[in-house]
Amino acid sequence: MRFVRALNTCAFSLRRRVISTHFLHCSLLKPYIGAHHFSVSGTMAAVADEDSLRRALAQKQSSIDVQGGAVRQLKSSGAAKLDIEAAVQSLNALKLEKASIESQLQAALAGAAGGGSSSASRDAFRQAVVNTLERRLFYIPSFKIYRGVAGLYDYGPPGCSVKSNVLAFWRQHFVLEENMLEVDCPCVTPEVVLKASGHVEKFTDLMVKDEKTGTCYRADHLLKDFCKEKLEKDFSLSAEKAAELKHILAVLDDLSAEQLGAKIKEYGITAPDTKNPLSDPYPFNLMFQTSIGPSGVSPGYMRPETAQGIFVNFRDLYYYNGNKLPFAAAQIGQAFRNEVICLSFQLRITISFCTSFVPIVLDLVMLCVLISPRQGLLRVREFTLAEIEHFVDPQDKSHSKFSDVAKLEFLMFPRDDQVSGQCAKNLQLGEAVSRGIVNNETLGYFIGRVYLFLTRLGIDKDRLRFRQHLANEMAHYAADCWDAEIESSYGWIECVGIADRSAYDLRAHSEKSSVALVAQEKFSEPREVEKLVITPIKKELGLAFKGNQKMVTEALEAMEEKVAMEMKADLESKGEVEFHVCTIGKNVTIKKNMVSISKEIKKEHQRVFTPSVIEPSFGIGRIIYCLYEHSFYTRPSKAGDEQLNVFSFPPLVAPIKCTVFPLVQNQKYEEVAKLISKSLTAAGISHKIDLTGTSIGKRYARTDELGVPFAITVDSTSSVTVRERDSKDQVRIDVEKVASVVREVTDGLSSWADVLKMYPLHSSETAEE
Amino acid sequence: MRFVRALNTCAFSLRRRVISTHFLHCSLLKPYIGAHHFSVSGTMAAVADEDSLRRALAQKQSSIDVQGGAVRQLKSSGAAKLDIEAAVQSLNALKLEKASIESQLQAALAGAAGGGSSSASRDAFRQAVVNTLERRLFYIPSFKIYRGVAGLYDYGPPGCSVKSNVLAFWRQHFVLEENMLEVDCPCVTPEVVLKASGHVEKFTDLMVKDEKTGTCYRADHLLKDFCKEKLEKDFSLSAEKAAELKHILAVLDDLSAEQLGAKIKEYGITAPDTKNPLSDPYPFNLMFQTSIGPSGVSPGYMRPETAQGIFVNFRDLYYYNGNKLPFAAAQIGQAFRNEVICLSFQLRITISFCTSFVPIVLDLVMLCVLISPRQGLLRVREFTLAEIEHFVDPQDKSHSKFSDVAKLEFLMFPRDDQVSGQCAKNLQLGEAVSRGIVNNETLGYFIGRVYLFLTRLGIDKDRLRFRQHLANEMAHYAADCWDAEIESSYGWIECVGIADRSAYDLRAHSEKSSVALVAQEKFSEPREVEKLVITPIKKELGLAFKGNQKMVTEALEAMEEKVAMEMKADLESKGEVEFHVCTIGKNVTIKKNMVSISKEIKKEHQRVFTPSVIEPSFGIGRIIYCLYEHSFYTRPSKAGDEQLNVFSFPPLVAPIKCTVFPLVQNQKYEEVAKLISKSLTAAGISHKIDLTGTSIGKRYARTDELGVPFAITVDSTSSVTVRERDSKDQVRIDVEKVASVVREVTDGLSSWADVLKMYPLHSSETAEE
Repeated sequence: MRFVRALNTCAFSLRRRVISTHFLHCSLLKPYIGAHHFSVSGTMAAVADEDSLRRALAQKQSSIDVQGGAVRQLKSSGAAKLDIEAAVQSLNALKLEKASIESQLQAALAGAAGGGSSSASRDAFRQAVVNTLERRLFYIPSFKIYRGVAGLYDYGPPGCSVKSNVLAFWRQHFVLEENMLEVDCPCVTPEVVLKASGHVEKFTDLMVKDEKTGTCYRADHLLKDFCKEKLEKDFSLSAEKAAELKHILAVLDDLSAEQLGAKIKEYGITAPDTKNPLSDPYPFNLMFQTSIGPSGVSPGYMRPETAQGIFVNFRDLYYYNGNKLPFAAAQIGQAFRNEVICLSFQLRITISFCTSFVPIVLDLVMLCVLISPRQGLLRVREFTLAEIEHFVDPQDKSHSKFSDVAKLEFLMFPRDDQVSGQCAKNLQLGEAVSRGIVNNETLGYFIGRVYLFLTRLGIDKDRLRFRQHLANEMAHYAADCWDAEIESSYGWIECVGIADRSAYDLRAHSEKSSVALVAQEKFSEPREVEKLVITPIKKELGLAFKGNQKMVTEALEAMEEKVAMEMKADLESKGEVEFHVCTIGKNVTIKKNMVSISKEIKKEHQRVFTPSVIEPSFGIGRIIYCLYEHSFYTRPSKAGDEQLNVFSFPPLVAPIKCTVFPLVQNQKYEEVAKLISKSLTAAGISHKIDLTGTSIGKRYARTDELGVPFAITVDSTSSVTVRERDSKDQVRIDVEKVASVVREVTDGLSSWADVLKMYPLHSSETAEE
Repeated sequence: MRFVRALNTCAFSLRRRVISTHFLHCSLLKPYIGAHHFSVSGTMAAVADEDSLRRALAQKQSSIDVQGGAVRQLKSSGAAKLDIEAAVQSLNALKLEKASIESQLQAALAGAAGGGSSSASRDAFRQAVVNTLERRLFYIPSFKIYRGVAGLYDYGPPGCSVKSNVLAFWRQHFVLEENMLEVDCPCVTPEVVLKASGHVEKFTDLMVKDEKTGTCYRADHLLKDFCKEKLEKDFSLSAEKAAELKHILAVLDDLSAEQLGAKIKEYGITAPDTKNPLSDPYPFNLMFQTSIGPSGVSPGYMRPETAQGIFVNFRDLYYYNGNKLPFAAAQIGQAFRNEVICLSFQLRITISFCTSFVPIVLDLVMLCVLISPRQGLLRVREFTLAEIEHFVDPQDKSHSKFSDVAKLEFLMFPRDDQVSGQCAKNLQLGEAVSRGIVNNETLGYFIGRVYLFLTRLGIDKDRLRFRQHLANEMAHYAADCWDAEIESSYGWIECVGIADRSAYDLRAHSEKSSVALVAQEKFSEPREVEKLVITPIKKELGLAFKGNQKMVTEALEAMEEKVAMEMKADLESKGEVEFHVCTIGKNVTIKKNMVSISKEIKKEHQRVFTPSVIEPSFGIGRIIYCLYEHSFYTRPSKAGDEQLNVFSFPPLVAPIKCTVFPLVQNQKYEEVAKLISKSLTAAGISHKIDLTGTSIGKRYARTDELGVPFAITVDSTSSVTVRERDSKDQVRIDVEKVASVVREVTDGLSSWADVLKMYPLHSSETAEE
C-alpha cells in the first residue's frame, strides 16, 4: 500500500490529527496490497494453526533441550550404555517430532501466503505470460538499448492497440453514456496547485540511505522484508515474537518516521547489499520536479494524477453544464510518480561494470529492469490514468440511473467482513446500498458501472472483487471508498478506486486560490435559515497571541457548528477553554472576551454549497496487465509436442481483429486476400495480411499468441473460411460478405454464435495444426 | 523560426561545419515563420517600391535640408520679404512631397507585411474566433484560478472532443491504412538518449538577462523586434540601413551568440520594460529537466518530441515486422518544450501585486496568459505530437502506393521559387516527384497523404501549402524536407513537417548505445563488392598526436569513400595532407606513413545498412487551431440585429454530432427526445439533449457556435425534423430511423445531399430565428 504520511488537516481546525494513508488524492496505484489484507481474509484457520504450531515447536525444542541435557549428563557420569542409548533414542524421537511440526508449519505458512495455488506455480504462470508479452512486443522495457530505466515501459504495437481499444471503450462506456465533460490538461503543473492539494508537503515515501554508499531504500520495504523473512524461515520464532512481527506488517503503513527508524534499529536491519548501517528514515517526495521558464524561480511538477486539472476548472465546467448539478468531468492522461524501485539482492553483479561512485549508482538504477523488480509491470513511474469527478449535491446523492445496475450481483468485501476475517461474498448491489454497506446510490452506481466495464473488457468476474477501505485506510473527510481489485499472480491488485471524497478537493483549491468553487441551489421562495455567526474580537486576540493572532482568528472562524456551540457553552460556564490551533501546532486558551458565538435567523434566497465529489479513478496499465493474465492460456499443439500460447481477448480489446492469408502461395488467392484486406481497412477493422507462405498451423499459432480472434483463410476465389480462435470452429463465408461479417462480430453487433447459425460449419480438411 | 544553434557533427569527420537550424530532430513547431519567407514570397514588387521610396525620401530630406538652409540664410541676411516667402513656400512644398512619400512608404510596408487583408481586420477576426473558443470552453488557460501559466492550455469539453476525433482519424488514415506499428513510450527520458539525439547539447535558445532585474528575454526576439520596428516606423531610415536590417531579419536564425550580442550592443538595445542594459546572450536548454529516482544522480528530461522513443526501438520493431523494410512506426503523445514566452510591454502593471523580488518574477510568469503572449495558442510548452518514422532502404525510396496520390494537385512552394521571389503554385504531385522537385516517391507519398488528411479534417485547400525547406533551414544530412503550412491570422503556420532525415537518427543511437540499428538485405547469391579499407597506423599516430591519437584515428576511420580517396591521392602526390578533426576542433597534418587507404574486393552474402527514415511529424494543437480559424464564420441573426458565430466543422471532427430538443416543453415530446438520445448513444454518436425550453432560435445559435452539424427537433411523436447547420435546410425523418440516418452521415457513409434526396424537405414553420 502507498506509504503516505499523515495529514494534519489545518484547513478545518479542531479536527483530530488523522494518521491516514489516504488523505491525499492519490490512493490509486498503491504499489502493494498490504499483507494484512491477505492474512485477514479467509486465512484465519491457517493463522490459528500457525500459532499453535509455533507454540508446539517451542515446547518440543525445550523438551529436546531437557533431553539433550539428560543425555550429556548420562554420558559424563559414565552411565550404562543401554541407558545412554535409550536416552539418545528419546532425543532422536523428539527431534523427529520437531521436524514434523516444522514441516507442518512450513505448509501452514505456504498455505496462508499462497491462498490456494502454490507460489511456484504462480511464478511460472506469470513468467509464461510475461515472456509472451515481451516476445510479441506487447511491452518493451523503455530505452532498452541503453539498458532501460526501472519502472518505465513502452507499449509495443499490440500493447498500444490494446490500450487504445481499452481507452476507446472507456470513453464510450463512461464519457458518452453519461454525457461527461471530458477535459485534457497539461502534465506540467505549477507548485501552487500541488501545494493546495497537499502533494508538495505530503506525497512522500520514507527512505533510508546506506550510510557508506548512499544507495536509497524504502524504509517500510526493508522492515517488511525483514518481518516476512523471519516469519517464513525462522522456525525458532516464538509465537509472541511472530505475533509482534505480524502486527508490524498490519500497521506498517501507519508507522511514523520515528517508529520505523526505531524498529529498524531494534531489529538491526542493515543495507541489504552491503550490510552497512542505515540512516534514519527521511521523507522523499514522489513527484518529478522541474522548473517552468528560464528564470528558474517557478518550480513545477509532473502531475501525480489527473484529477487536480478537473478541480481547478470546476467553476467553468459548472457554468458549461448550465449551472446544474450533478455532472461529471473526466480526463484521460499521463501521471508521473518517481517511485523508489528496490533492487533486492542482485546488486553485486553490477558492480563490475563501474569504475567510480556515481556510475555505480547509475548502473544500478538502469539494471533494475533486467533484474525484475518487485511487481514488474505493475510498479511504474509513468502511467495512464482515467479519472472521473462526479460532482453532486452533498444533500442528495441519489442517482437517476441507479436502477440500471441495482440488480447486478458480484463479489463485494465490506469493511466489517474484512475485520471479522470473512471472505468476499456475492452481494446484490441494490441491497448493498439499501443496507447502507455502500454509502450512497451514486457511489453504488459507479461501482456497478465499473463492474460492467471490467467484465466487458474480459476480466474474469470470479477474480474481481470490490473491497471497501478499512477505517485506517480512508481519509478522514471521505464518506466511503471502494477499490476494484483484480486477482493476479501478484495477489489482489487495486485497479480502480471509487471514492466519495466529500468536498475536500474543491475546498482546498477554493481556499488556496480565493476563487469560490461552489454551486447554488435557488429557492423557489426565500427560506429562513438559522446561521452560525462567529465573531473573533481581534483586539483581545491580538493582545493575547501577538504574532499568532491571525492563525487563531482563522481557526476560530473555521470552527464547525458543533464545535463552536460546545465552545460557546464552555465559555459561558467556565469563562475559558483550551483550543487546538493546528497551524501553530499547539493549544491556546480562549477567553470569553475573545470571541462571540451566536446563532441568527436569516432569510436566504439560495443555498450556496461546495459540491461533493465521487471519484472513480482507473489505473489503465494495471487493468491491462490483469487482463493479459486473465486472457492467457496454453493448449497443446496438434502433434502434442509443445504448448501453444493463446490470449483469449474479446474482439473489443483484441489488438488485431483479424488475419487474412491465402492457404497456399498462389497469385489468385493473394489477390482475393488483398481485396478482403482493402474492405477490412475501409470498415476500420485492424487486421494483418500474411503472404509469407508459412504453414497454416504456424500462422494460427502466431496469431493466437497475439489474441487475434478471427482468421480468414483464402482457399477459393468465391468463398473463404473464417476460424474463431478459442473454439477453433471454422465457417465458410462468401468473399464479398466476409468483411462485413467480421465487422459485425468485432463491433459487438453480433456474436460468433450468431455467425455459426448463419453460415455452414467448415470441416477442416486444411489440417490446422 | 526555432532558434537552434549550429551542429558541428563530430560523428563523421571532414564534414564542413554546418550552421543549421534543423540539425536536430525538432524542426516542428517553430515558434515563428521567419520574416524572410514573407518578404521573399510574392512581395518583390513591394520591396522594390520600398527601396525606391526610402531613397526618394532621403533625397527629399536633403532637398529640405538645403532649402531650409537657404531660408535661414535669406532671413539672416535680411532678404526681401517676398523672396523669403517664396523660399518658405518651396520648403513647405518639399515637406508636403516628403509627407506624401512617407505615406506611400507606409502603405508599401503595410502591403508587404499584410499580404492582402489588413493587419487590423486579421486581429479582429482572430479575436472573434478566440473569444468564441474561450467562451465555449474549447480552450481554458490552464490553472486559471491560480492566474494561469504562460504557454499551458487545457482542452475543455468541446476542444477535447475535437482533439480525440482528430486523433482517431489520424489513426484510421495513417496507422490503420498503412499498417503502421504504433508504440507508446514514456515522456520521462533519461539523459543518455537525449545526449545521443543532440538535444542535451544543442536544443537551446539564446537568452539575454536584464542585468538589474534578472528578467530573461530571447536575444533573437529583441533584435527582431528592434529591426521590425525601425523598418516600419522610422521613415528617416536610409535605404542602405533598411537593407542591413532586412538582412539581419533574413539571417536571424543563423547568427551565433557572439554575432547576436554584437548587434544588440551596436544598436543599443536594452530591456524592453526597464531600459536596463542586457547581459551577453547565453544558451538556455528548452527541455524540462528532472531527476529519476531518489538518489538525484540520474538526470532525465521530459521528451521534447516523441520520435526518439521509436528510434531506440528500431531493432525490435524491425524484428516484429519480420525483418522486412520498408515499414513505418507511429506514436501519438505529449511533448514538452520550456519555451521562453515574452511578456512584451505590459509588465509594469503586475508589480503592484508583489512585495519582494521572487514573488515579482512569479507573478510576471503567471500573468502572461492574461496579457496575451505572441502567437497565443500556437506557442505552448506542452503539446500533442503525432509522429511517423517510415524506415526505408536508402537505395530504394520508391513507394508501392505512390500512384494513389500522384494525380493530386495542390499548392507547392519549392525552394527555387522561394529564392527567386515567386509564389506558391499548384503542382501535380506526380510531376513534382518525376521532375525531382520532391526528392523521392516515399516523401511524395506522405506529402499527398498529409494533404488528404488535412483537407478531410476541414482545412481550406486554398490556405494550405507545402513549402520546401531552404538550404540553410535543412540539416546537412537531410535529403529533403517539406512543411505543410496553413495560413491563419498569424500568417503561414508550420503544422506538419515531412522530412527525409536519411540515416542520421539511427546512426546517432547506434553509436551511443553500441547496439547496431541496421537492416540486412540477403543476396540470393554472394556478390563481389569493392570495399574501402582504411587502416590507421596507430604507432605513428601515437607518436605524432599523443593524447589526441584516439580522436584522430576515429576521424580517419569515419571518412567517407570520396574523402578517403582524395586523401589517398594527396598523400601519394604530396606525402602529407591537412585534415580537420572536429572532435579536437582543429586541423592536423596527416603523413603518408600514418594511414593506409586501399580498396579491396570482397565476397558478401548480404548487405547490412542503416535505413533512411522519412518522418511526417504533426503538431496536433496547431492543426486544430488552424481548423478553428478555417471553420469559423458569422451570419446575421434573423432579426438582423446581431452576428451569430458558426463553426462549420465537418461531422468527422465536430465535437458533438447532433442535438436533440423538443420544440415545446411537453412530456410526450420529451419522451421521444429521450428515446432518440438513447438510440444515438447506442450508435456511439456524441450528442446533447436540451430540455431547457429555450427558444428554438437561441438553441440553434448555441449549437452552431459549438459546430454541431445536425439538430433534431421533436415536433411530433412519429417524425422529427433534422436541420443541417450551414444550409439550415430541414428534412422530416421517422423517429425510428433518425438515429441511423444521423449515424450514416456523421460516419461519412452518406452525405447531407444524399439525405436531401431521400427525405422530404421541411418548410420551416417553426421559425428558426
